[in-house]
Amino acid sequence: MSDRIEADYLIETPIDPADAAAVMAGEQSSGTFVKLASETPELIERAAARVQHVETIDTVAQPSLPGAIAAQSYAVAKVTLSWPLENLGPSLPNLMATISGNLFELRQFTGLRILDLRVPAAFTSHNPGPKFGIEGTRRLSGVHKRPLIGTIIKPSVGLDPTQTAAMVADLAEAGVDFIKDDELQADGPACPFEDRARAVMEVINLAANRTGRKIMFAFNLTGEVDEMRRRHDLIRDLGGTCVMVSLNSVGLSGMLALARHSELPIHAHRNGWGYLSREPMLGWSYVAWQKFWRLAGADHMHVNGLRNKFCEADESVIRSARACLTPLRPEAPCLAMPVFSSAQTPLQAAETCRQLGSADLIHAAGGGIAGHPHGAAAGVRAMRAAWDAAMNGIPIGEAARGNPALAAAIKAFDQ
Amino acid sequence: MSDRIEADYLIETPIDPADAAAVMAGEQSSGTFVKLASETPELIERAAARVQHVETIDTVAQPSLPGAIAAQSYAVAKVTLSWPLENLGPSLPNLMATISGNLFELRQFTGLRILDLRVPAAFTSHNPGPKFGIEGTRRLSGVHKRPLIGTIIKPSVGLDPTQTAAMVADLAEAGVDFIKDDELQADGPACPFEDRARAVMEVINLAANRTGRKIMFAFNLTGEVDEMRRRHDLIRDLGGTCVMVSLNSVGLSGMLALARHSELPIHAHRNGWGYLSREPMLGWSYVAWQKFWRLAGADHMHVNGLRNKFCEADESVIRSARACLTPLRPEAPCLAMPVFSSAQTPLQAAETCRQLGSADLIHAAGGGIAGHPHGAAAGVRAMRAAWDAAMNGIPIGEAARGNPALAAAIKAFDQ
Repeated sequence: MSDRIEADYLIETPIDPADAAAVMAGEQSSGTFVKLASETPELIERAAARVQHVETIDTVAQPSLPGAIAAQSYAVAKVTLSWPLENLGPSLPNLMATISGNLFELRQFTGLRILDLRVPAAFTSHNPGPKFGIEGTRRLSGVHKRPLIGTIIKPSVGLDPTQTAAMVADLAEAGVDFIKDDELQADGPACPFEDRARAVMEVINLAANRTGRKIMFAFNLTGEVDEMRRRHDLIRDLGGTCVMVSLNSVGLSGMLALARHSELPIHAHRNGWGYLSREPMLGWSYVAWQKFWRLAGADHMHVNGLRNKFCEADESVIRSARACLTPLRPEAPCLAMPVFSSAQTPLQAAETCRQLGSADLIHAAGGGIAGHPHGAAAGVRAMRAAWDAAMNGIPIGEAARGNPALAAAIKAFDQ
Repeated sequence: MSDRIEADYLIETPIDPADAAAVMAGEQSSGTFVKLASETPELIERAAARVQHVETIDTVAQPSLPGAIAAQSYAVAKVTLSWPLENLGPSLPNLMATISGNLFELRQFTGLRILDLRVPAAFTSHNPGPKFGIEGTRRLSGVHKRPLIGTIIKPSVGLDPTQTAAMVADLAEAGVDFIKDDELQADGPACPFEDRARAVMEVINLAANRTGRKIMFAFNLTGEVDEMRRRHDLIRDLGGTCVMVSLNSVGLSGMLALARHSELPIHAHRNGWGYLSREPMLGWSYVAWQKFWRLAGADHMHVNGLRNKFCEADESVIRSARACLTPLRPEAPCLAMPVFSSAQTPLQAAETCRQLGSADLIHAAGGGIAGHPHGAAAGVRAMRAAWDAAMNGIPIGEAARGNPALAAAIKAFDQ
């Protein structure tokens, strides 16, 4: 199997799942809607996708998605397909077309979701992968053996470069480890990238000279390839230590072009993820999807947060974060640091610590720090105290008794 | 309104649609989950997204998507939001993050789909747009006042460069106007791009010398940015007239990097479209989605075909094709040629002609030409005859009486 690519799917189908799996394999390799003489047995042996596994797990009365062949009932099954590496080589954009392609539109399916994939070693050796990952992020940020406490510039839009830098100065004073641009803030006329970068890095460099530790600021350089490379170089030259990109905005080829050029950790934002995943019988599981981006060079991957403002259940969030911390291959783990965010406050620290079983994460609180009743510095202190307590097994209520910032955060956010 | 971006949505929500629309506007501009003092009235006036329109159109008892706030019933509504251009400038990757972003994951929605968008003139002037479009495609292919009759190399994978060129020689003999690589065929070790391009272009150039008309071959150069530019240059240098790219594999930044570099029409393949659109209350309408890619430089856009092998209804296919033929702005129409494909045969010509009301399309039949009982040349003759009949208002049965190739196609494919 070492030179074959494998992908796992969850399917729902009005036909026999084994037949449905054969349709998938045909559509994504040598088949078409009529049998061609040129599709010889020798060609099939060499180039066709293979059905490795089909397992029916349920039957449902109603189709999850419209448009398919009608039936009395619909089988739910797990399917594994494989392809020879020879068909496409270790190219991530072509891997995307091969394992997803037209499958989701076929009339033989009332549901189809990609659950996972496994790639031969050629993919990890050919693609950039994370250049910094957990170890590099800790080295550049100076944060060890605990999560990076992060925040997001808010309001997301509307601040000019000077106002943004003033907010960074407050957060630097407060002792935060990590700050990111909001994904809505990139290079608009109201807050140009270069002006913002210069203003912010001046504040960060001054603070670093004072404290000996440099805040990691993820500048959102999402844009065209040449723009991203130029913005990256500016950040590097200003002494910055991180850049951010919206994955669904730039796509795999954009990300690869940035990653091959980059000398800084890449903070990968998943905004748009909902349209890929919100319907449980359609699209992508995060477990499969994040592998593309780690191979392409993501050092930090957004995974949502526990008790978030979105629809995702906590168990799904934890599964995503664990996936980022699971080696892609034994010889090339390509680990990315999971980023927990979305309505995060000190109240989620203990559960995040317990359920993830690791301190290798960035815990980003926007409103949860800026909205602290005593201000951002107290917000950071409360997050740090909550994590200290969590990692030492001390209940948050107990920890709050000696910590007014944490006590105030609990009072403000525990609703 | 001239300097604002507008997007239309279909939403389903357990809360009042006006409140839901306000949540959308907040999430995608200056709001977060707590009210911040820094979100001043002046900042809101300048930078916040505005709710332009909310119209409730239905109420449903069951939620379309799981995970949201539970309710007795769910309102279905149309919502229009707008943003100041100042927030992001005319950047397509950042437009993607702005109009889609985290919206699909919000707990206030049991359904959310982007229906359409309108952009200020800065977007058409700043972005490449189609460099060739309909007029350029007709000029390079020498096909006027009728559709280009196209086909796809099949089997999709498994042929080597020599076998591919031999098939192109047959199709050239057959008189086809347009040929494309299958989207699964790019630059794998089993059929390297450069070897395939050289072998195929030798055949095409020889045929052009003989006939005076050059077949347009869309070479799939999907890959990393530098690879795509290098492959494009090879095709241009070999005298080729078209390149193809899988949009969901390369993403907006990859497409923009190719388009700014390209001197050839770009044939844009939408494989993966199903995961963006198959659930009616989630994701993207094609009408909205295709505007990004036309702005980014797509000359040909895949729209599926009538009576296709997929789930899409004919009326949706026609709506998509008409969208590609509708000007983006009066001063910058940016029209792309729609590509009809998927289980196409001469049998769909008349309805395609009548329903689209235009001959500005590529009609691509893979199995419908290669699978013709008398061979590919007869397959092309049958497609041409079906379109001649359709455009002259002659019923296909009547046209087939004087045309054995068409008669045989009807017999083979009318099931």
